[in-house]
Amino acid sequence: MTDSTVESVRDTTADEVDAIAVAAAGAAGPWAAMSLADRAGVLRGVADRLDAHAAELIPVAMRETHLAEARLAGELRRTSFQLRLFAQTVLDGYFLDVRIDSADADWPMGAPRPDLRRMNVALGPVVNFAASNFPFAFSVAGGDTAAALAAGCPVIVKASPGHPELSRAVGRLVDQALAEFGAPSGTFGLVFGRDAGVQVLTHPAIAAAAFTGSTAGGRALYDLACRRPVPIPFYGELGSINPVFVTEAAARTRAAEIASGLLSAVSASAGQLCTKPGLVAIPEGATLFTELAELTRTGPVPTGEMLNEGIAAGFTRAVEHVRAQPNVELLAGGEPGEALLLATTARTVLSDPDALLHEMFGPATLLVSYRDTTELLELARSVGGQLTVSIFGDHVDDTVRALTAAAVGTAGRVLWNSWPTGLSVTYAQQHGGPYPATTSPTSTSVGTASISRFLRPVVYQSVPDDLLPLELRSDNPLSIPRSVNGARPQ
Amino acid sequence: MTDSTVESVRDTTADEVDAIAVAAAGAAGPWAAMSLADRAGVLRGVADRLDAHAAELIPVAMRETHLAEARLAGELRRTSFQLRLFAQTVLDGYFLDVRIDSADADWPMGAPRPDLRRMNVALGPVVNFAASNFPFAFSVAGGDTAAALAAGCPVIVKASPGHPELSRAVGRLVDQALAEFGAPSGTFGLVFGRDAGVQVLTHPAIAAAAFTGSTAGGRALYDLACRRPVPIPFYGELGSINPVFVTEAAARTRAAEIASGLLSAVSASAGQLCTKPGLVAIPEGATLFTELAELTRTGPVPTGEMLNEGIAAGFTRAVEHVRAQPNVELLAGGEPGEALLLATTARTVLSDPDALLHEMFGPATLLVSYRDTTELLELARSVGGQLTVSIFGDHVDDTVRALTAAAVGTAGRVLWNSWPTGLSVTYAQQHGGPYPATTSPTSTSVGTASISRFLRPVVYQSVPDDLLPLELRSDNPLSIPRSVNGARPQ
Repeated sequence: MTDSTVESVRDTTADEVDAIAVAAAGAAGPWAAMSLADRAGVLRGVADRLDAHAAELIPVAMRETHLAEARLAGELRRTSFQLRLFAQTVLDGYFLDVRIDSADADWPMGAPRPDLRRMNVALGPVVNFAASNFPFAFSVAGGDTAAALAAGCPVIVKASPGHPELSRAVGRLVDQALAEFGAPSGTFGLVFGRDAGVQVLTHPAIAAAAFTGSTAGGRALYDLACRRPVPIPFYGELGSINPVFVTEAAARTRAAEIASGLLSAVSASAGQLCTKPGLVAIPEGATLFTELAELTRTGPVPTGEMLNEGIAAGFTRAVEHVRAQPNVELLAGGEPGEALLLATTARTVLSDPDALLHEMFGPATLLVSYRDTTELLELARSVGGQLTVSIFGDHVDDTVRALTAAAVGTAGRVLWNSWPTGLSVTYAQQHGGPYPATTSPTSTSVGTASISRFLRPVVYQSVPDDLLPLELRSDNPLSIPRSVNGARPQ
Repeated sequence: MTDSTVESVRDTTADEVDAIAVAAAGAAGPWAAMSLADRAGVLRGVADRLDAHAAELIPVAMRETHLAEARLAGELRRTSFQLRLFAQTVLDGYFLDVRIDSADADWPMGAPRPDLRRMNVALGPVVNFAASNFPFAFSVAGGDTAAALAAGCPVIVKASPGHPELSRAVGRLVDQALAEFGAPSGTFGLVFGRDAGVQVLTHPAIAAAAFTGSTAGGRALYDLACRRPVPIPFYGELGSINPVFVTEAAARTRAAEIASGLLSAVSASAGQLCTKPGLVAIPEGATLFTELAELTRTGPVPTGEMLNEGIAAGFTRAVEHVRAQPNVELLAGGEPGEALLLATTARTVLSDPDALLHEMFGPATLLVSYRDTTELLELARSVGGQLTVSIFGDHVDDTVRALTAAAVGTAGRVLWNSWPTGLSVTYAQQHGGPYPATTSPTSTSVGTASISRFLRPVVYQSVPDDLLPLELRSDNPLSIPRSVNGARPQ
């Protein structure tokens, strides 16, 4: 932050929003046309600048989000790592999914096959609705921005109201890096305010949207995206309860370990994580209950302050909703700043799933006791779309196999003896799942595969070599991996 | 057709639709769990059965669609070829997009990377709204059905009202082949009637929809899919004008060839093709006009009968709309069964693009004369989302490069000196483009890549080998291509 004067951050005006969207449309062609090496250089330039300014950014983030310094430092490291991983993804060229069919007069379809050369191209300007709970990794220069820029798309970020000054500071660093590394003006934009977000989403210049936030807010924006005269893909990551199923064997043999892991997973970052476990199925009468009681006996489990008053109020409402259901008991916690453990039975949940399968975005979880394997499996098949399902087991038996099948049917990530928090940014990662976990279950919002959300395929038919982009020319000058005539990419 | 008695085909009742959808939901798990080899065997079984019954099916198709025998025989060959190509795609295993990250304590993100193993799984039951204009290739056992079955999804086809008896006959053959090769009951279903289609689309059991048809009809169904309590992906291929841009050099040197190619492309299958060229930009005063006049002087270009009265009436309305615009002239044709050539100027189109960029689904095209390169490029940048854009040129110069850039920005397929009709089913093919060409520009509805519409990724985290599916086990028993730690698939 070269400018450390704090002025209040005002909403972006309608005229300003329009200018930003028009600038993004103008930048779309030139930005997509930059070489892969130059595009990767821009991403690295943003990463370097974030790292260089960590000491200035982290205090602003701490003040605006109440998250701890160590957590924010780790998150910033993750964010710059993520940008560099996308730079590498761009250079690899594998995301272009190049497929080439050579002309074939004897193609068995019954008609000659022309020369066809296919690659992914950038979809166009993307709006990224930033999340409040990851002020670096899912915000201005976070995963959605990195993936869209890597795809060759300009990005307009709708800032989270939870950390406006940090958003502005990061936005300036992104602007500076893009200018320094030669990205066209308009490649990045930042808007503030709810109306501005709606205006960008419905602007004709915009080709796709990414969102991380609540189910209600995300669904409202999804509906707007679908109702546009020209509808656009809306990649929303909404709500998830991230159920955890503990088998009888695991509850018997590893109760202490599971109990302490659960309390950590529920209380970390004050439970304000998309992947916080919100429902834990435990065999009736398991010693796990005793272990949890033991761990909470000496006093409440501290969670730290919540992000802001709005989120704290939403958490209170969600908890009150669950506590108001019949047969729900308070096990531990209940005051602000404490991890909250509620308990009920699988019978209760199964008798009214909509009432109890209810995300509490904050440090709370619902322990659900089941009587037998039948009830456990019925519960596992009733939880609806999820980002994650975790199974704590001891050995692989029929119950575990059935739980795993149910988990694959309902979630994007299935974990064994692991907590779903602490998502890793990798090549194979999948963060997304059936609705309401995401509005687009066929994609991910974390990991290098998330770039494909912002790409569309184009095929060139019988186009001469000197009119083709470098990626598709016969001599493959960029050494891009390409699948020729249906073979694996070489 | 073992049962050759023709009874009138009635609409499927609400109770029947519900039973079919529930059966599809029941089949989803077992069908997805069949081995890749068995799934490929089912697809080949359907293909073989279609081929074996060609002599019975084609006369029914001729009677219901008025399409010529040779065209229908070719289309049936294409359809069974397509099923076999998807069988091969299934066996290849590349569509699973397997990615494996090994555990890495030093992953530079700043936290250890767990073992992550990702693969695509079937999305669930798919409804396929069959098209009227390809009674085999885009209908009951057509591309969308083949792709969804190949992905491991049950399919419910909403039959086209244009060929109900053929639909029923093909449906029986599919049923028989599925039963013979061991697919679970409920893997395939067939419904008739508009209400039945809406009921399937909005049924909770359905996970995705595919559609080929008009912009109005497709948009209405897309809106329904988005408004469901659980919205689902809707892959609609709607309208396209498939503009053709003829450079001055090409118009000068190859007028006769282009003129005769154009008349073939417009009149084939009575112009009832998604890829029929509906707008051809030609330099003002080009000899191409003379050539076209010459070719049509001896009499109208015959097109054959249209599919049905509804489509003929829609075509008449679309033509009347375009003819009613100012500065639109009739060049040739105009009676039923004749190719229709209309003409106007680029100035006229650019002054009111919405009025003139209007799909005429039938044997008509609009010749648009341009005065100079500026007007040509302005036109190329104004045509909106398209399945295809064709460029007829002589040599590669700046104008051709600018036309190509505009084409890539607006279409899914860009052709050089080729007509867009006669779509080839291949590995690299792309049939889809920005709205209104399709509702999902990131995908294709033709070619092996179309399978990805019906898949979603799932990642297994730290799951022991004996609990993993075969595709992800450490020893790779199925020899599936897999990308390990970000490398190209081996």
